[in-house]
Amino acid sequence: MALIVQKYGGTSVGSIEKIQNVAKKVIEQYKNGNRMVVVLSAMSGQTNKLIEMAHQMTDDPDLRELDVLMSTGEQVSVALFSMAVKSLGYDACSLLGFQVGIRTDQLYGKARIQDIQTDRIFKELEMNRIVSVAGFQGLDEEENITTLGRGGSDTTAVALAAALNADLCEIYTDVDGVYTTDPNLCPKARKMDYISYDEMLEMASLGAKVLEIRSVEFAKKFNVPVHVRSTFTDERGTMVVAETKDMEKIVVSGIAFNKNEARITISKVPDKPGIAARIFEPLVKTGIVVDMIVQNTSQEGLTDLTFTVIKADFNNAMKLLDKVAKEVGAEKIIGDENISKVSIIGVGMRTHAGVAQKMFTALARENINILMISTSEIKISCAIEEKYTELAVRVLHETFGLDKGKTDI
Amino acid sequence: MALIVQKYGGTSVGSIEKIQNVAKKVIEQYKNGNRMVVVLSAMSGQTNKLIEMAHQMTDDPDLRELDVLMSTGEQVSVALFSMAVKSLGYDACSLLGFQVGIRTDQLYGKARIQDIQTDRIFKELEMNRIVSVAGFQGLDEEENITTLGRGGSDTTAVALAAALNADLCEIYTDVDGVYTTDPNLCPKARKMDYISYDEMLEMASLGAKVLEIRSVEFAKKFNVPVHVRSTFTDERGTMVVAETKDMEKIVVSGIAFNKNEARITISKVPDKPGIAARIFEPLVKTGIVVDMIVQNTSQEGLTDLTFTVIKADFNNAMKLLDKVAKEVGAEKIIGDENISKVSIIGVGMRTHAGVAQKMFTALARENINILMISTSEIKISCAIEEKYTELAVRVLHETFGLDKGKTDI
Repeated sequence: MALIVQKYGGTSVGSIEKIQNVAKKVIEQYKNGNRMVVVLSAMSGQTNKLIEMAHQMTDDPDLRELDVLMSTGEQVSVALFSMAVKSLGYDACSLLGFQVGIRTDQLYGKARIQDIQTDRIFKELEMNRIVSVAGFQGLDEEENITTLGRGGSDTTAVALAAALNADLCEIYTDVDGVYTTDPNLCPKARKMDYISYDEMLEMASLGAKVLEIRSVEFAKKFNVPVHVRSTFTDERGTMVVAETKDMEKIVVSGIAFNKNEARITISKVPDKPGIAARIFEPLVKTGIVVDMIVQNTSQEGLTDLTFTVIKADFNNAMKLLDKVAKEVGAEKIIGDENISKVSIIGVGMRTHAGVAQKMFTALARENINILMISTSEIKISCAIEEKYTELAVRVLHETFGLDKGKTDI
Repeated sequence: MALIVQKYGGTSVGSIEKIQNVAKKVIEQYKNGNRMVVVLSAMSGQTNKLIEMAHQMTDDPDLRELDVLMSTGEQVSVALFSMAVKSLGYDACSLLGFQVGIRTDQLYGKARIQDIQTDRIFKELEMNRIVSVAGFQGLDEEENITTLGRGGSDTTAVALAAALNADLCEIYTDVDGVYTTDPNLCPKARKMDYISYDEMLEMASLGAKVLEIRSVEFAKKFNVPVHVRSTFTDERGTMVVAETKDMEKIVVSGIAFNKNEARITISKVPDKPGIAARIFEPLVKTGIVVDMIVQNTSQEGLTDLTFTVIKADFNNAMKLLDKVAKEVGAEKIIGDENISKVSIIGVGMRTHAGVAQKMFTALARENINILMISTSEIKISCAIEEKYTELAVRVLHETFGLDKGKTDI
C-alpha cells in the first residue's frame, strides 16, 4: 500500500466534467490499495478572472488582500472534487492551507513554505478518505493567508510528499512529460524518461515551464521522486529523480531557450575595485534580477560590462543605470532587446570535455554570432540574436544527438 | 468614539462599483472617529452560481464540501472591500471565519454560532484598521468550515456586535427598514421607527424577510440594538430594540402573511392518548416542520386533527401520513395547498382585550372565512383561502390604524 501525492493543474480541472474525470482517475488508484492525497490548482481561467476583478477595483491591489482573493480559486476546486468523489461512492475530505497547517513566510504572492503539519491529513487517511488539498496557499505565523505564486501548486504537492514521506509524487499536467526541448519549436524533440533534479532546475529556470522551479528545489532537497505526466493519457511521463551513474553517459539531456531577456552594455567603465558593485546597486534595490554577466579584460584602465535582465525590467534598468553610469564616469550605455539565450544542459558535462567547443562550432557553422557566454557545471548558455533562436535550438538538438535519444562526443 | 458593526447584504456589494461605494460610506464613519467592523455577504448572484456548480457536479452535493464551496463567496467580498478601502488611502484588513475564531456546531449549511474570539479583531482595530469580516461562515471544533444558512451574515453581524460589545449594529440592505406589512402588497404600509425584538421575531418567522430570524434571537439575547436601513440612502431605517413601555400603547405593530404553507386534515381519528404523537412521528423524523395545529372537540370518540406544513414538504408529508393514518384507524386525509396565513403582531396585545374579536369581525365583514386560528402572547394568526391574502392584509392594516401610524381599540 503506497502513499501517493498527486497534483492536477488548472487545465486538468477546468470544468465540472474534467473534475469528475480526475475523481475517477484518483479512485482507480485508491481501489488499487493506495492512500491518495490530491493537490489541485484553480480551474483554468479562474485565477485570471480573480486578478481581473482586483484590477477593476484598483490599479495596485493590496498584496495581502490579493492572496485572500486568489486562494478562493483552489478552494472551489477541492470542494467540487470532494463532492465528485463522494457522489461516486467513496469517502473524501477537502482541506485548505490553514486546515492542513501549511506554514509559510509573509511574502504575499510569492510566499515560501516553511513547515507542513501532517496530523490532519493522516487522520483523514486513516478514515479511508481520499484527501484533497488546495494548492498554492498557506498561512503565515500571524494566520494571514498567503499564496506561493504562479505554479505554486507544484510546490505544495512536492512539499506535501516530502512532509508525508510519500512513496511517489505525481504531477498531472496538460503535457505528457519533460521534453529535450520545446516540441512547438523543434518537432524532433523527444520526451525524456528520466531527468535529474539539477538538470530539471536548469531546464525550469531557463524557460521550460513544465514544473515550477521551487517545487524541483524541494524535490531535490528531500529526495522526492516526481513523475510529470499527462492527465489525459495513461502513458508514462518523465521521472525527475536524483542523479544516477547512468545519467552521466548522456552529455546533453536538453536544450532550453529564453526569449525574455534583454542585454545592457556599459562601455568604457574605469576598471577600479567596487565599480561593478556600485553599478548593480540601484538594480538590486529595485528588485531587478541580473542574469548573465560578462566583463571584458581591461584596456588602458577601462572595461566594458555587459549583462542581461528580463525584458519587463529593461526600460526601468536603463533609466536607473543612466544616472549611475555618469557617476562612475562610463562612456555610454547600449541596450539591446532583440536577444535570446540558448542553453545546453546535462549532468554528463561534468565528466566530458569538449562540449562547449562542439556547441560553438555548431552555431558558427550556421553563422550564428555568439554575443555572450556563461557556464555552470552542468549547462552552457549563449546569448544570440533573437531571430536565430529556432535555428540554434534545432541545430544543437541534432548536434548532441537528442533527436535519436543518445549523444556521442 | 463608538464601535460600530455594520453588515452589507449581497445587493449592496453586487458589483465592483457598489463595493467601492460601501467602502466610501464606511470610511465616512471611520473619519468621524468610529471604530468600524464590516460584515459582508457574497456579491449578489454569487451564492446561486456556486450552488449551481455543485448541482452540476451531483444531484446531492456533500454538505461539508458545499460549505467549503459556498464560503468562498464572502471571502471574495471582504478581499475586494479591503482593497477598495486601501486604494482610498485607509488601512484595512479582511478576516475570514477561521481567522476571527467564529466557532459553530457541526450542522453544515445551518450551523449555529457558539463562540466568537475577539482578540484578532481588537488587535486590528488598535492598528487603526477598518476590519471586514466574511459573513455566513464559521469553524466547527474540528476546524471544518461551516456556514450559517441563508441570511447568515445578519447573524454574524449581530453575534459580532454582541461579542465585541459594540455600541451599535447596523444592517444595510436593499430596503429602507421594517414596514408595517409588505409595501408591494399594501401600498399604505409604513416604515416603523422602532420595533421590539419579540415583534421582529414574529414578523421574521411569519415571512417578513428583512432580518434573518436567528440574528434577531441573538440581538434579543445579548440586547444588541440593531438598525435596519438602506445602503442606497442616508435616511434612518428601523431600530430593533428591547421592549419599552411606550410600545405597549400600540396594540398592533405589523401585519405578516405567509403563502408558503399547506393544510392537512386527518379526519375521524380515534381520540386516544398518544395518537397525535404517533401521527407526527414520521414527519418529525423526516425533518418536516409542523406549524399551526388545531384539534377539534371529540365527538363519539373521534376527532379531526388539522395542521399546516410548508408547501415544499406537502407531497412528502401526505405520503408519510397515508401509512400512519391507516395504522391509527383514521377515516381519511384531506390536503389543501391553497391556503395562506395572515397574522397581526404587537406587544400591546398583552395589555389590551378585544384584539382577536376585532380581527375576526374585520375579516367576516369581507366574507373571508377563517380556516384555522392560532395565537401567542403577541400575535394572532388566521389561516384563510390563499386568494383572499391581499384583501385580508389591507383590511387588517386599516382596521388597526397602521395606515395612520396609530391604533385605537
